[in-house]
Amino acid sequence: MDLDFQISKREKLSDQLYGQLLEKIVSGELKEGYKLPSENEISRAFNVSRPVIREALLRLQADGLVYSRQGAGSFVKARPPESLIKFTSPSDISGLLRCFEARLPLEGAAAALAAQRATEEEVETIRKTLVAMEEAMEKGEIADKADFDFHMAIANATGNEFYVSILGTLHTAMRSGMRVALNITKAGSKQRMRKVQEEHRTIYDAISLGDVTAADLAMRYHIQSARTRLMNHQRDI
Amino acid sequence: MDLDFQISKREKLSDQLYGQLLEKIVSGELKEGYKLPSENEISRAFNVSRPVIREALLRLQADGLVYSRQGAGSFVKARPPESLIKFTSPSDISGLLRCFEARLPLEGAAAALAAQRATEEEVETIRKTLVAMEEAMEKGEIADKADFDFHMAIANATGNEFYVSILGTLHTAMRSGMRVALNITKAGSKQRMRKVQEEHRTIYDAISLGDVTAADLAMRYHIQSARTRLMNHQRDI
Amino acid sequence: MDLDFQISKREKLSDQLYGQLLEKIVSGELKEGYKLPSENEISRAFNVSRPVIREALLRLQADGLVYSRQGAGSFVKARPPESLIKFTSPSDISGLLRCFEARLPLEGAAAALAAQRATEEEVETIRKTLVAMEEAMEKGEIADKADFDFHMAIANATGNEFYVSILGTLHTAMRSGMRVALNITKAGSKQRMRKVQEEHRTIYDAISLGDVTAADLAMRYHIQSARTRLMNHQRDI
Amino acid sequence: MDLDFQISKREKLSDQLYGQLLEKIVSGELKEGYKLPSENEISRAFNVSRPVIREALLRLQADGLVYSRQGAGSFVKARPPESLIKFTSPSDISGLLRCFEARLPLEGAAAALAAQRATEEEVETIRKTLVAMEEAMEKGEIADKADFDFHMAIANATGNEFYVSILGTLHTAMRSGMRVALNITKAGSKQRMRKVQEEHRTIYDAISLGDVTAADLAMRYHIQSARTRLMNHQRDI
Repeated sequence: MDLDFQISKREKLSDQLYGQLLEKIVSGELKEGYKLPSENEISRAFNVSRPVIREALLRLQADGLVYSRQGAGSFVKARPPESLIKFTSPSDISGLLRCFEARLPLEGAAAALAAQRATEEEVETIRKTLVAMEEAMEKGEIADKADFDFHMAIANATGNEFYVSILGTLHTAMRSGMRVALNITKAGSKQRMRKVQEEHRTIYDAISLGDVTAADLAMRYHIQSARTRLMNHQRDI
Repeated sequence: MDLDFQISKREKLSDQLYGQLLEKIVSGELKEGYKLPSENEISRAFNVSRPVIREALLRLQADGLVYSRQGAGSFVKARPPESLIKFTSPSDISGLLRCFEARLPLEGAAAALAAQRATEEEVETIRKTLVAMEEAMEKGEIADKADFDFHMAIANATGNEFYVSILGTLHTAMRSGMRVALNITKAGSKQRMRKVQEEHRTIYDAISLGDVTAADLAMRYHIQSARTRLMNHQRDI
Repeated sequence: MDLDFQISKREKLSDQLYGQLLEKIVSGELKEGYKLPSENEISRAFNVSRPVIREALLRLQADGLVYSRQGAGSFVKARPPESLIKFTSPSDISGLLRCFEARLPLEGAAAALAAQRATEEEVETIRKTLVAMEEAMEKGEIADKADFDFHMAIANATGNEFYVSILGTLHTAMRSGMRVALNITKAGSKQRMRKVQEEHRTIYDAISLGDVTAADLAMRYHIQSARTRLMNHQRDI
Repeated sequence: MDLDFQISKREKLSDQLYGQLLEKIVSGELKEGYKLPSENEISRAFNVSRPVIREALLRLQADGLVYSRQGAGSFVKARPPESLIKFTSPSDISGLLRCFEARLPLEGAAAALAAQRATEEEVETIRKTLVAMEEAMEKGEIADKADFDFHMAIANATGNEFYVSILGTLHTAMRSGMRVALNITKAGSKQRMRKVQEEHRTIYDAISLGDVTAADLAMRYHIQSARTRLMNHQRDI
């Protein structure tokens, strides 16, 4: 069994191909409804093997950017906001989305445990990180540190050190994802900024009231919404 | 924000107190239905502060060993098997259970993703680790390495490197928990061993059939059952 | 086994007691942080038995209105908006909340199945009910019929007739809950109305994009939020 | 909006087609790995419209019996036990499976609430229905009444009358599904019968210990397993 927990070469190549196809979708070269080049064409154009192409296409599908129709090929489904590739390298996007994917069940469960077990002191720490984040956003700053602190304060309040270690493992990727998301939020409307703040406040409220179901839902809804804001340019919400 | 992802001193003390109370419950000194000493008595006997006592009692409750009745104190609810403290230090038990707690949502989600995305090659790798584990168990070995390999092969099959990193982070704690659980299984009946094997096979079947819901459920049921086998001496299942 | 699926006499009495305590909390007679009368005092004042009192108190706890501290009794935790009892009988509130409780897992699962299976025609039907609801709300109407139609259209799109039957069973209670919630929304700010519309649109978007996880989450978040809007007067969101 | 909660004509036709294809799979006329006839061939042979065929094929896929490969058509994936169509009409199978599908989230949530709220009296009622079911099975009876009573006793213990009403709505379909499942169990090995009993006992244990997570998981695992026993002839478990 491989205990070298690194991304494999195939994954790296497919992330690069993913990034290149993503750029074409974002730029509008491949418009919504357009058919993607066939595996043969991609293979010739990018000089990559079939498994790499399949992995890139599957990820584009999993990320909601393309869909496939039996026997007819793959088609563009949605066009992410241009700001998506303004704030990060296109070949990093797929990795950022995988980080959101892993955080969803993990942090949902952490918020539920925090709602059950947080001491008054721990609730107060969560509140302080929330206020720090709100204040930084009001000043127009990219509040990725305060954002991470908020999520880590919740992990701490689970009373389960493994949640804290795991967030430590995800620290770099989480901060990158938060930076991109917060940059897109900043580039958007005031209403969008309020929505992001509202999502964090709803999580805090549920934890402070000890509402386990609401805390779990609010956290997972927030992570899912952050992911949607990254990938969907149609609505500024 | 504290980025030192270590268990705190208070947690360490409460784990020790937890271990000492656990020993009294396992030994039968504190029988089912018996009232635990009051916080005052514990404070005098063990010379620890109130927050430490409360944390230990809350953990005993969370772990299903004691329950509290409003105004009347805490009572012993269930007696874990003697083998529990034969195969590990009592003060480590609480940590092992917290590891199971963190694994539940995480590995459930990983199994679901593996059912969606595993390549034939990855399914075959999972199958091989399953067979290795079954063979080791038949020979009377403690198959914690094969057990971990099985879970790691599933993390690999998610196509999401973060699941792999996280299992890397949990590696030591998972292996410890698996060793204790497998020792208890080995000390139990043939029927119990079959049940453990059956649980792993059900996870494999669901992933190989691409059944997302069944894979998620089978994994979480397995982790929950392993936890129950550790803590509940009444039934040899 | 009792196949008479009616609410029992004990439940009816406890709903009445719940309603009377709720009125005192809403009116401010029992302020946040205040201690509720003891079981003895309630028993004398309302002439009801202990099991009825305990059930009413447990429900107030489950609904997030009171909390209990070991040995010290029950205290008021949150004060619902006055409009809550303006639009329905206080003794009906507990039942409305139980309906939300049952809808949460059920409709979450229905939205996930709809995201998997809805035909283009079914997606279009959901969209039409959404537009009808939005238009009715803009006109200042109480759009409980359109709201129910929206949820029923999703049940239809599961391709599983049992979801449709179950929503039929819940029809009266759902419509009542929707009427109260929509009345409170109407009495609130424009921003709150936008939030309610946004929640419905997010469900629709996830289903139309075939995003199973997002559809499940968006539906459950909406039902949980509707419940919170009923019970929490502090924030007009 | 259609409030006539009946299965539509299209659904009825697709259930019949589903049943006919299912018979061919169970009988071995269409072996595992075999390609199903094309939509054109099915259309000619059964004289049904394309939407009906697509619905039947999608259901066979959803039920894990066939899979489709892009551009290549549909193939048989698994062969259900012959006993499946011995104990019920093939055209009823699809409906039975949809009932299991609806029960999964619903009864999982009910078991979790019962673990939180069941009174001692209600736990005792659940235990009695469990014993009645075990005794009937030992005598070789088809214990569908006791089985339903067990599930209804749990719904009662939620303290939420809507779960009781909903199980009332599902009563006929649940009893049918239980009869088929119990017939297949009876036709199987002693070990399989023990497994079914064990699943029920695990649910009861979790509820009686007040373990919310375990109760939710045990119930959903049981319903999922019952479904698998119906559809998978390979393993007698």
